[in-house]
Amino acid sequence: MTRCDKRDVDQLREVDFELGFNRYAEGSVLVSFGATQVLCNATVEEKVPPFMRGEGRGWVTAEYAMLPRATHSRSARESVRGRIGGRTHEIQRLIGRSLRAVVDLNLLGERTIQIDCDVLQADGGTRTASITGAYVALVTALRKLQREGLLSEDPLRDSVAAVSVGIVAGVPMLDLCYEEDARADVDMNFVVTGNGKFVEVQGTAETEPFSVDQLRQLQELALAGCRRLGELQAEALGDRL
Amino acid sequence: MTRCDKRDVDQLREVDFELGFNRYAEGSVLVSFGATQVLCNATVEEKVPPFMRGEGRGWVTAEYAMLPRATHSRSARESVRGRIGGRTHEIQRLIGRSLRAVVDLNLLGERTIQIDCDVLQADGGTRTASITGAYVALVTALRKLQREGLLSEDPLRDSVAAVSVGIVAGVPMLDLCYEEDARADVDMNFVVTGNGKFVEVQGTAETEPFSVDQLRQLQELALAGCRRLGELQAEALGDRL
Amino acid sequence: MTRCDKRDVDQLREVDFELGFNRYAEGSVLVSFGATQVLCNATVEEKVPPFMRGEGRGWVTAEYAMLPRATHSRSARESVRGRIGGRTHEIQRLIGRSLRAVVDLNLLGERTIQIDCDVLQADGGTRTASITGAYVALVTALRKLQREGLLSEDPLRDSVAAVSVGIVAGVPMLDLCYEEDARADVDMNFVVTGNGKFVEVQGTAETEPFSVDQLRQLQELALAGCRRLGELQAEALGDRL
Amino acid sequence: MTRCDKRDVDQLREVDFELGFNRYAEGSVLVSFGATQVLCNATVEEKVPPFMRGEGRGWVTAEYAMLPRATHSRSARESVRGRIGGRTHEIQRLIGRSLRAVVDLNLLGERTIQIDCDVLQADGGTRTASITGAYVALVTALRKLQREGLLSEDPLRDSVAAVSVGIVAGVPMLDLCYEEDARADVDMNFVVTGNGKFVEVQGTAETEPFSVDQLRQLQELALAGCRRLGELQAEALGDRL
Amino acid sequence: MTRCDKRDVDQLREVDFELGFNRYAEGSVLVSFGATQVLCNATVEEKVPPFMRGEGRGWVTAEYAMLPRATHSRSARESVRGRIGGRTHEIQRLIGRSLRAVVDLNLLGERTIQIDCDVLQADGGTRTASITGAYVALVTALRKLQREGLLSEDPLRDSVAAVSVGIVAGVPMLDLCYEEDARADVDMNFVVTGNGKFVEVQGTAETEPFSVDQLRQLQELALAGCRRLGELQAEALGDRL
Amino acid sequence: MTRCDKRDVDQLREVDFELGFNRYAEGSVLVSFGATQVLCNATVEEKVPPFMRGEGRGWVTAEYAMLPRATHSRSARESVRGRIGGRTHEIQRLIGRSLRAVVDLNLLGERTIQIDCDVLQADGGTRTASITGAYVALVTALRKLQREGLLSEDPLRDSVAAVSVGIVAGVPMLDLCYEEDARADVDMNFVVTGNGKFVEVQGTAETEPFSVDQLRQLQELALAGCRRLGELQAEALGDRL
Repeated sequence: MTRCDKRDVDQLREVDFELGFNRYAEGSVLVSFGATQVLCNATVEEKVPPFMRGEGRGWVTAEYAMLPRATHSRSARESVRGRIGGRTHEIQRLIGRSLRAVVDLNLLGERTIQIDCDVLQADGGTRTASITGAYVALVTALRKLQREGLLSEDPLRDSVAAVSVGIVAGVPMLDLCYEEDARADVDMNFVVTGNGKFVEVQGTAETEPFSVDQLRQLQELALAGCRRLGELQAEALGDRL
Repeated sequence: MTRCDKRDVDQLREVDFELGFNRYAEGSVLVSFGATQVLCNATVEEKVPPFMRGEGRGWVTAEYAMLPRATHSRSARESVRGRIGGRTHEIQRLIGRSLRAVVDLNLLGERTIQIDCDVLQADGGTRTASITGAYVALVTALRKLQREGLLSEDPLRDSVAAVSVGIVAGVPMLDLCYEEDARADVDMNFVVTGNGKFVEVQGTAETEPFSVDQLRQLQELALAGCRRLGELQAEALGDRL
Repeated sequence: MTRCDKRDVDQLREVDFELGFNRYAEGSVLVSFGATQVLCNATVEEKVPPFMRGEGRGWVTAEYAMLPRATHSRSARESVRGRIGGRTHEIQRLIGRSLRAVVDLNLLGERTIQIDCDVLQADGGTRTASITGAYVALVTALRKLQREGLLSEDPLRDSVAAVSVGIVAGVPMLDLCYEEDARADVDMNFVVTGNGKFVEVQGTAETEPFSVDQLRQLQELALAGCRRLGELQAEALGDRL
Repeated sequence: MTRCDKRDVDQLREVDFELGFNRYAEGSVLVSFGATQVLCNATVEEKVPPFMRGEGRGWVTAEYAMLPRATHSRSARESVRGRIGGRTHEIQRLIGRSLRAVVDLNLLGERTIQIDCDVLQADGGTRTASITGAYVALVTALRKLQREGLLSEDPLRDSVAAVSVGIVAGVPMLDLCYEEDARADVDMNFVVTGNGKFVEVQGTAETEPFSVDQLRQLQELALAGCRRLGELQAEALGDRL
Repeated sequence: MTRCDKRDVDQLREVDFELGFNRYAEGSVLVSFGATQVLCNATVEEKVPPFMRGEGRGWVTAEYAMLPRATHSRSARESVRGRIGGRTHEIQRLIGRSLRAVVDLNLLGERTIQIDCDVLQADGGTRTASITGAYVALVTALRKLQREGLLSEDPLRDSVAAVSVGIVAGVPMLDLCYEEDARADVDMNFVVTGNGKFVEVQGTAETEPFSVDQLRQLQELALAGCRRLGELQAEALGDRL
Repeated sequence: MTRCDKRDVDQLREVDFELGFNRYAEGSVLVSFGATQVLCNATVEEKVPPFMRGEGRGWVTAEYAMLPRATHSRSARESVRGRIGGRTHEIQRLIGRSLRAVVDLNLLGERTIQIDCDVLQADGGTRTASITGAYVALVTALRKLQREGLLSEDPLRDSVAAVSVGIVAGVPMLDLCYEEDARADVDMNFVVTGNGKFVEVQGTAETEPFSVDQLRQLQELALAGCRRLGELQAEALGDRL
């Protein structure tokens, strides 16, 4: 069996970060994982949700949406249907948790960083691309706050990236495109920090339950994939590795 | 540190299945994991969702809700707020996927088993109790269909149970009550089949990311816990082990 | 014609109050009128609705819902439909009014008693069972407030109970089960105080309008039924009659 | 105490029916009970609700709404709030039931008469004026169907009218205006057929529960009031009494 | 071709303003353009929208709705559909803008004039009749404020009226009724001040795009029509011309 | 006064069409009017809205939305607010009408072309850029249908483009950027066909009503601007002019 893009089983798709895509956002990144394209815009708001007011701590949260024609066939807008679907809720909660795991909210001050992840084109892995790109947008916005003297200390504790892995036709593999994902028996997403620890682990057996040994193999693919994504994030941000 | 109910770290809370709680449902179980109580009612409907019509296959799905005063302080009804929240969506999708993993939908015929999981009282672990109880309600409904001659073959491929694990004050432990859950650094849910394979693995670092080694320890606690839940399910269903 | 449960026309179904069903609510009662089971949880909130703020008076209100499989065939959740139906609105307004009729809101202080009536199983008379059980939950909560020294005077002015009556196959009868209700020509609900006065009278001719004389007969059945319910409420609350 | 409009306790307000107010509706009546004005438009639709299809029977139903400035101070539109309130649901269900009580749905054929009651100005008694006017609009539409030969037999079994009664400052009185209604201890609505039978009886103690004797007095006022309304309806319809 | 009502191409339908239709509104006008009837009620509220608070300026806004049977066949209520449609939004924004164009909001003080335009019967031109009638209701309300000494200076800068024009069967004509509107190739609405300037110009080619020359002809018809409407408004308001 | 981008009063901003931006859509164009960027995706669906079924005619419709951070400060998603706002409705109806004006729906066959206009970045003129870009996406999709042999005749009757004009500080000017638009006294949008006829004319006096003469000047600017846009559209589509 040949993978889409003729990749090795442990190979990422071509990953790209286009910084400054939007001129207004405090941080703006168009991230690509192959044909998957997500526009991640970070907005700094000088307020926090009601339940946090007066505590002096900050908040990081995210919203996620797909353009109607991000996919092969058009899907109805959630604004038209009048409500946000379960999948959207699940993904935007995941993005928010993943980012908060690497930010010291006490050092952020009483402000919110709102990340909007809008999928312009989808070819599998939109949630992992969103997290990976949102991190870059978040760092861009934090550095802007620092340059403007609004942060005394850097609230960033580590980097974070995410990747999908899965078992397709019995073979564990990294970073599934849509076609692979559609045929996968097992589909997992790992969110991993720069120092190799887990923020989130989500695995689902689509058809066949998976064994302890398979879980271990998928975990190893994901750890290596996220390590590589971390290098690419740092490069995009102009960091010396 | 002492656990709530003075349990060992690898010990489940007292688990109970009260079958036949509701007189109308084709399968009805009030499941308790300690003070957590979930009423799981299975309804058989002789139709499938529109996207599956005419394929001859069945469907298993679930809905999840909490009574307003299932919790320490009252929370507003989702019907009053006019929409179902993100957490509810996430949980009911999880319950449905978990059950479908052990049912051969081709053998079910063109009908739907709808499981309603209504939390009467919540003390942590409502989603894992829901899955564990929903399985018992599902089996009860399937056996009723078999007794009535509506199924030629048993569509059940395996059993399924779920349990939470977590790291509290640095200690990995099984089946967290609310108070433990609120203090946990890491919170995971495992959905495991009778033969020890994973259907779902969901882990979240609430405060501190977790290591490869910690993930392994949590996994072992969960596998043992689900094995024990499987025995209790079989007993409740009157099965010879 | 024989009644369901072989009752006399002026006989209540078996009525039961299980106090303390929920461990968190300030008052919690599972009330049964035959196979009809309603969980009534009273919550004390130290605030009042906006339109009453600063007046020093309290408020008593109620919400009512049915579990999807409370009935013979499953009905869709109101949270899923995104709105509360007309029947639900009508019933919860009735429960609230009935309870407020026997509470001196000035003596309650600026707090709200919120009663949640959730029907676990329905076999006719869910609104009358709800009112009758909600009263017991309300008293339990008020007594807790008194024990805690939060009320200087007892705000309770009288007791209240409710019962359905109807004309089935030409015969006036008390406390209709679902099957009787479905066949009734006239369906009435009376909400009556302990001293035999009316709080609410609601009668509907389902098929045939009813006469002045029939109204009188139904009224007499209801007054006797509510008298008996008042005795059972007092007994459940441990009151000397 | 003097009543508004200086009426006797058993006297109706000035009642008026303006037929043909709207040029499109199959039946159209602007009914006034004093300053209360309700536009009742009857629409004939050659279909029935889904649950009745193919049974050969008809349906009569109603919707009720108030213009925002029907009242002293403006109230928000239900379309703007995005949902219909409890009171509206309650009233429109009542209007529909009241009209169906005097129509033989089998003789109506598989069609729906939809009555829209829109309150242009409100001064108490909007639901009773709506029922009383809706009956006249309904008859107008039925006669049109008969003239067009679409009905072989008259489906009307009787007439129906409604009136409010109440106890104000201890005095039972007929047809309350807004000011009286706001001060009433007891507020009742009776829906009565032409031959003096009850279709609906709804009484609420706003402040003080009421006695068996008071109920009887209110009932007598209402029966006389509806008798008079029936005469005025017949007159408006051009019927010989 | 003969126009409906046998009018000349540059002739308005019969226009009527019935002032004081509603007894509660600060300004109330039932405006008729032929068979089109719109009830325009002006409400004065001593507050402004949140975004304007504390600026000392006032606001004028409008809502528009149709009764279900304002039209030949009944249309569903927007409150029942749970949302306001696009056409309604468009029209009520237009009415608000048109009125604000002739009011000096600084002189109005920090209060809102809310105009409700409810179409009782529709025969084309409901938006232009609404604007023309709403102006009269607005002036009535402003004069009431002046009489009560709540306005030191008259905030009215000019009058405003609106009319539709269109090209039907190749012929430009004024003030289309429904039947003409349905057959029109081009449909335009002009909102014009008393001194002959444009507040709004909205033209739509329903079937055939229109030329520069046709636009000029329509503009001339509209200017003359609005001049005549201004005279009728002044007359209704009792102004000396 | 100097214009943004130092343009002449009759000069368009830099206009760009990036075809094939999205890989799935049948027609996909990222249109830029200066810093305003709108992604226009055309989807071909082999069905028509219910009210057109079986007539053999096609339909062209549009949806419009802004990403939350398309603007200087972030605005809430319409999916989160649960409803589409009035401005959105107005714009998407305008886009649909404009496109239908140049398509012969009879030649399109019973299919729908759905155009999604998603504003990635907004700097004034989003609706006119949407129409101008949507036309290019529409033509791309129609040519694809023709290449695939699904259309026997070209349903395109003409081209269409749109531009804003306005009076800023007393000066009529073409194609306003956000800053100019915010200061404009008059704001107009013209939708014009390739042969110089009007499809839509929409003008609003934001502060001062405008005269017949000013309308004429704005019209001339718009006609010239749309002529130039038509040349750029043709060039982008590879058409010989």
